[in-house]
Amino acid sequence: MTRTSLKEFNCSLARTADIIGDKWTLLILRDAFFGASTFSQFQKSLGVARNILADRLEKLVQNEVLVKVQTRPGVERYTYHLTERGQGLVPILIAFTQWGDKWVFGEGAEPLRFVDRKQGLPIRSVQVQSSDGRSLTPTDISPTPGPAADERILKAFGNRSKPT
Amino acid sequence: MTRTSLKEFNCSLARTADIIGDKWTLLILRDAFFGASTFSQFQKSLGVARNILADRLEKLVQNEVLVKVQTRPGVERYTYHLTERGQGLVPILIAFTQWGDKWVFGEGAEPLRFVDRKQGLPIRSVQVQSSDGRSLTPTDISPTPGPAADERILKAFGNRSKPT
Repeated sequence: MTRTSLKEFNCSLARTADIIGDKWTLLILRDAFFGASTFSQFQKSLGVARNILADRLEKLVQNEVLVKVQTRPGVERYTYHLTERGQGLVPILIAFTQWGDKWVFGEGAEPLRFVDRKQGLPIRSVQVQSSDGRSLTPTDISPTPGPAADERILKAFGNRSKPT
Repeated sequence: MTRTSLKEFNCSLARTADIIGDKWTLLILRDAFFGASTFSQFQKSLGVARNILADRLEKLVQNEVLVKVQTRPGVERYTYHLTERGQGLVPILIAFTQWGDKWVFGEGAEPLRFVDRKQGLPIRSVQVQSSDGRSLTPTDISPTPGPAADERILKAFGNRSKPT
């Protein structure tokens, strides 16, 4: 059997990847975060083929990551804006940027730096933290079945029961 | 002009998206983080066509996110493991999971939960923080030209000079 849709996975990561796991989609979200809102602003910034851009924008609107707003009644002009759901992707965008800073460009060779507007100081690296704020490495983290764990997940975890 | 390669962008987010901005690649990284290492383990977990899986694994090896290890001399069997560079992607994987938890499955309906091994408590939501650990919203963050800012970036920021 070959799967073609990530919707078949009972997995939050797969469902997010189904919505934003695409190169151009990630750059559209970057530009929306930087204030781009019209088709031509995205097109000029990305230099991507118009049909690809239209397809990706439409999918982001369908997934309620962007909202499409008609600029004036009766005029076929629209702007695109991040919804609350879309704003929730910003930590992912920052984490992508910081990984590229560290592992592609290297320290001291970053094209951009993000600062905290209030203090003007560089932001922290996005990291995984414990509930009391300790920084966690990958080996410090353990997956456990969640409330919506299915048979496959329970089996993988040795049929430990779901949390109540 | 139509761009076809994300390598043309002087942008860390674009370069990371070029390496992992693909649905199947993200699921391969998920499975590698969960301990999958052989071709057949990835294939069984993902149900993806073998040629797609082979292509994505090869690209991850080329990009030094996975390392391919021959299991025994003279035997054409290999395992794939996250490199340090690959481990650096774990905050991204967790952020993808948490976004899907919140915006696709919803609170209380998570298929999996990640806990801190030491305390057994759920980890925090991955967030953007100031250097002193305050949680920052998207509007609290401002991009500024970095040391490797090019003319295009400097122009976008009104020719503010690069940091020294």
